[in-house]
Amino acid sequence: MLPGKKKGFELDPRLESESKQVMWLGLCELRIRDDRRWPWLLLIPQRPGIEEIHDLTPLDQAMLSFETNMVSQALKDMTGCTKINCAALGNIVRQLHVHIIARHENDAGWPGPVWGYGEREPYRREDLHQLAENIKRKL
Amino acid sequence: MLPGKKKGFELDPRLESESKQVMWLGLCELRIRDDRRWPWLLLIPQRPGIEEIHDLTPLDQAMLSFETNMVSQALKDMTGCTKINCAALGNIVRQLHVHIIARHENDAGWPGPVWGYGEREPYRREDLHQLAENIKRKL
Repeated sequence: MLPGKKKGFELDPRLESESKQVMWLGLCELRIRDDRRWPWLLLIPQRPGIEEIHDLTPLDQAMLSFETNMVSQALKDMTGCTKINCAALGNIVRQLHVHIIARHENDAGWPGPVWGYGEREPYRREDLHQLAENIKRKL
Repeated sequence: MLPGKKKGFELDPRLESESKQVMWLGLCELRIRDDRRWPWLLLIPQRPGIEEIHDLTPLDQAMLSFETNMVSQALKDMTGCTKINCAALGNIVRQLHVHIIARHENDAGWPGPVWGYGEREPYRREDLHQLAENIKRKL
């Protein structure tokens, strides 16, 4: 079993293929979505079979809130963005995942939502790696 | 001062004009967005000048998480929806507000996000009132 990997939990293959791991937190795996249009992080609670935040245990709900807000603050400090967009949607990928996105005025799709907007634009590999390192240092 | 109204807090006029009050919770005012395309609730923490969840105090962050998850569970039970969409965006209206939306397969815009999709379709006044009563009973 890989370090940090929780028994019975398998990351959704669509989340896996479109994002890169940053680190493990207490409850969640933190990943970056590989889309250079927006600094976009994902928190995935390592709990099998959960689709809604309210289906987590009360302790896990509190942990998720703590980790979401910690990452959100770090991303805002790092990017100096205008607004953090934070959401759990899951209409397509049902495995519970929380989006934390740094939005800047006049970025792609501003002030509309990012989901479903245009086509994903992957980073250059070294830029994605660098962004992951920068986030790790901020946390 | 109105009952439940917190000193120094003024509801954003755009939130006020497009939604109807359901009730006051411990931290938030709970409102329904007046758009019959989706059952759509709003939680507005009664704290002046706050734009990001991570700018609330730790206690308020915990309260907001608790109230969001309680309302989300109630809305899912009430509607039998496929998926709850829960988000704090604020790109247009900066006053902190959390969206809790019941999504059904094949509803307007499914599986895309609701924000910016088409034009708002107000309820008939009695339907909006009834929905508010139903939510109150569920909480």
